[in-house]
Amino acid sequence: MLHRTLSGIPLENHYGPDDVRAAEPPPGEFPFTRGIHHTMYRGRLWTMRQFSGFATPEETNRRYRYLLGQGQTGLSVAFDLPTLMGLDADHANALGEVGKCGVSICSLADMETLFDGIPLAQASVSMTINSPAAILWAMYLVVAEKQGAAWEALNGTLQNDILKEYIAQKEFIYPPRPSMRLVTDTIEFAARQTPRYNPVSISGYHIREAGSTAAQELAFTLRDGVEYVEWALARGLAIDEFAPRLSFFFNSHSDFFEEIAKFRAARRIWARLMRDRYGARDERSTRLRFHAQTAGCSLTWQQPNNNVVRTATQALAAVLGGCQSLHTNSLDEAYALPSEQAVTLALRTQQILAHETGAPLVADPLGGSYFLESLTGQLEAQALDYIQRIDGMGGMIAAIERGFPQSEIAQASYRYQQEVERGERLIVGVNAFTHEEPEPIEILQIDRAAEEAQVARLRALRLSRKNDAVESALNQLRKTAEGGGNTMPALLDCVRAYATLGEMCNVLRACFGVWVEQAVL
Amino acid sequence: MLHRTLSGIPLENHYGPDDVRAAEPPPGEFPFTRGIHHTMYRGRLWTMRQFSGFATPEETNRRYRYLLGQGQTGLSVAFDLPTLMGLDADHANALGEVGKCGVSICSLADMETLFDGIPLAQASVSMTINSPAAILWAMYLVVAEKQGAAWEALNGTLQNDILKEYIAQKEFIYPPRPSMRLVTDTIEFAARQTPRYNPVSISGYHIREAGSTAAQELAFTLRDGVEYVEWALARGLAIDEFAPRLSFFFNSHSDFFEEIAKFRAARRIWARLMRDRYGARDERSTRLRFHAQTAGCSLTWQQPNNNVVRTATQALAAVLGGCQSLHTNSLDEAYALPSEQAVTLALRTQQILAHETGAPLVADPLGGSYFLESLTGQLEAQALDYIQRIDGMGGMIAAIERGFPQSEIAQASYRYQQEVERGERLIVGVNAFTHEEPEPIEILQIDRAAEEAQVARLRALRLSRKNDAVESALNQLRKTAEGGGNTMPALLDCVRAYATLGEMCNVLRACFGVWVEQAVL
Repeated sequence: MLHRTLSGIPLENHYGPDDVRAAEPPPGEFPFTRGIHHTMYRGRLWTMRQFSGFATPEETNRRYRYLLGQGQTGLSVAFDLPTLMGLDADHANALGEVGKCGVSICSLADMETLFDGIPLAQASVSMTINSPAAILWAMYLVVAEKQGAAWEALNGTLQNDILKEYIAQKEFIYPPRPSMRLVTDTIEFAARQTPRYNPVSISGYHIREAGSTAAQELAFTLRDGVEYVEWALARGLAIDEFAPRLSFFFNSHSDFFEEIAKFRAARRIWARLMRDRYGARDERSTRLRFHAQTAGCSLTWQQPNNNVVRTATQALAAVLGGCQSLHTNSLDEAYALPSEQAVTLALRTQQILAHETGAPLVADPLGGSYFLESLTGQLEAQALDYIQRIDGMGGMIAAIERGFPQSEIAQASYRYQQEVERGERLIVGVNAFTHEEPEPIEILQIDRAAEEAQVARLRALRLSRKNDAVESALNQLRKTAEGGGNTMPALLDCVRAYATLGEMCNVLRACFGVWVEQAVL
Repeated sequence: MLHRTLSGIPLENHYGPDDVRAAEPPPGEFPFTRGIHHTMYRGRLWTMRQFSGFATPEETNRRYRYLLGQGQTGLSVAFDLPTLMGLDADHANALGEVGKCGVSICSLADMETLFDGIPLAQASVSMTINSPAAILWAMYLVVAEKQGAAWEALNGTLQNDILKEYIAQKEFIYPPRPSMRLVTDTIEFAARQTPRYNPVSISGYHIREAGSTAAQELAFTLRDGVEYVEWALARGLAIDEFAPRLSFFFNSHSDFFEEIAKFRAARRIWARLMRDRYGARDERSTRLRFHAQTAGCSLTWQQPNNNVVRTATQALAAVLGGCQSLHTNSLDEAYALPSEQAVTLALRTQQILAHETGAPLVADPLGGSYFLESLTGQLEAQALDYIQRIDGMGGMIAAIERGFPQSEIAQASYRYQQEVERGERLIVGVNAFTHEEPEPIEILQIDRAAEEAQVARLRALRLSRKNDAVESALNQLRKTAEGGGNTMPALLDCVRAYATLGEMCNVLRACFGVWVEQAVL
């Protein structure tokens, strides 16, 4: 048994009063180590938000209505790979991938179908989209407009964190700097027009899934946040105009106490950065709000029912760490997109934590624990050290260009893999307690007909829309992109004319170029 | 949302340094609030011990070998209802119940089959048996003797806690006082002959399952322990001769923090009782060791996969509370005895907690938490108050005879049921988030042929054994029971002669009488 956290932090046999510095202020007080609200879940439970999307907009719409009927309290859209890469469903590179890992959205028409019967004025919708985020958000805003929902009232989150794509997930289109410009466009637009909407969800999730430690996840995510802040300030926004709507997204991994400590450290670091480095005066600018998702990379295809246990304890850590919303993975996600039965059990997991375990009744219930307070301090120190190093390199884009976070993650991932291969870390069903026979589970199969239907609908759209209007809107987008203006108004006009995702991305590709990753040594 | 624990303790919004008294000594130091060992699970993981038994001794033996092959580290025998009530399989009242809720054991021959190929010198075996405990233990000791295993080396636990039968579970044969004499016989015999064996497992589990609060479970269990101590002292044993081998068995219920606090409070109360009230000098006498089982009563037949989630969080509470061994319920236990697949998942739950969550790496990881330390103190205070009231009644037997613990539990159970019926407490799948259709799961069916086989074997035994020797051994048992001597040697001789469980119990019934419960007002 290694006497280290999952991330390699050495652990003492036990901790005592001497391991803790001064007591933290109560929940709801700066620096919010103990939670961003005084009453925490007594005031409102976290949002139960299952990430979901597959096949056509119609089928995903049906799944959303089902989940809302089962007591889910927020929506989270998963897009397919072509959509994430800014390709229309009929692009040669999209073939075989349409609707496979998420829903295919090619134009406003698809977005209208996706939210058919779901009033966006009331819903809280998160969209996991990055390079084409501004485009998909423009579609969302136009659907809201057509439903008669005021933009000022919209409540939701755009993932839109392009930096973690270069660091970890590798789903990028343009080079880092024009990508940062697009993100800044959405932050600026949101500050002016959608004051309750989160234009970016700064994401450690994928950094962790790529094999980082908890401290790296913390450090790189918060330093990405700093980068967005710097760009927004450079755009001329004041810190308190946009910082209250920056939101975060973390992994909730298997090491129970390390994860809780990570969430607490994240709040403390961010609050101090915003107040002390950026002079935020509005307390909302200093409150780190986060969505959590249990660790997909911890799930195993062997003995898939074991994943229910993993997800339950990971979700409990997220709740005890004070998340604002939570996705619990389904047991079959190591195989496929979740079946209806599996996603229901994942949602039930959250409902049991909320209503049966007493976990939400006391704010920061672990506050004061010698071990947890000590671990919170250690994670904070490790993260601050990384942040300082990246500052020294000239910021996150410079660090990415020299491959620094990528290489740190690769080393951490290698160390972990070695521990597993040497049998120092046991993974139930993988390198310990294995069974002879695989256990068959029912999985969701995506019908190939979904792709054909989506392509047919797209082609029909191209014939039925007013193509002059499309051409003119795309031209306006080109001019804005070539100039220095905010692209959001031009994107909204393209969307209203039913320009497709691929068409808009092509304009931006032509202006900004495309990014090819360099090998990391 | 009720701002109270599952047991009704009011909860503050949050806790801080002012809610905690002085810091507790480190793990492994008196009064052991933080754990009975300094290194806790770093030294040795808890024993993973699934309670199991069904049908015939042959079939249960096969299940035991399977579980040991899957990485289970201890055995725990479930007996069927006729065995628990001291009836042979061919008794008229046994009909239809043989092998149904556990394994049927009628004589030494069955016990030999049960442990065929399982060397008792190495195994750690727990047996859940109460009124006939001395008899079943005698069978176990003779099997060990025949295997050549020295009694001094035997490692295991006899439940043998008759007081909780009168309080809660209601599986008793004789009146309380002769029952206490039999328990004292086993404690005395163990002190002399089996120094590593636990002759009694003082059990709160069934008290809790009957609807008690956590504080009642704590109080009545520890006061039962005091009663056994008083009887053993009256027998002439010195406290340090037997107290090190008293062990405990608690429920690990759904309220995550209340359960952890309960386990910590139990250790602190018991350590002080043993040292201060009974003058124990051997530190081992003051260390409360306990087995935990997740809460069977929390499982639902609706949406049975939800039970995996409940059991996982309850098991985590037991581990964070410092249990020495643990049973995790199977998802199908609200329907039937666990299937092989279900019990494997329950065992995997423990293995995931042990190897993937980091939970065992730091002793008492929650120590110092303002909330947890405060809750520990509140549970201790409530339990001490109950203990004092029972002392004032003249002890636990007097309290049982006047229906005191029974009535307290009934009131607590009623309060909880009302909270559920009023919808103040939500139970997922029961009064919230229900489905229209029941989900079919595969359950273990006990073949009626098992009963017939067991009856046939018993009748063959009665024909083949030396009935003169049986008669003479039973006569010796009668004389000992009528006199004041320890019944264990006479029981061992009956067992060696293959007297049956029913025959031995009948002798004792004739001497001691049978108990009929009075209605509690």
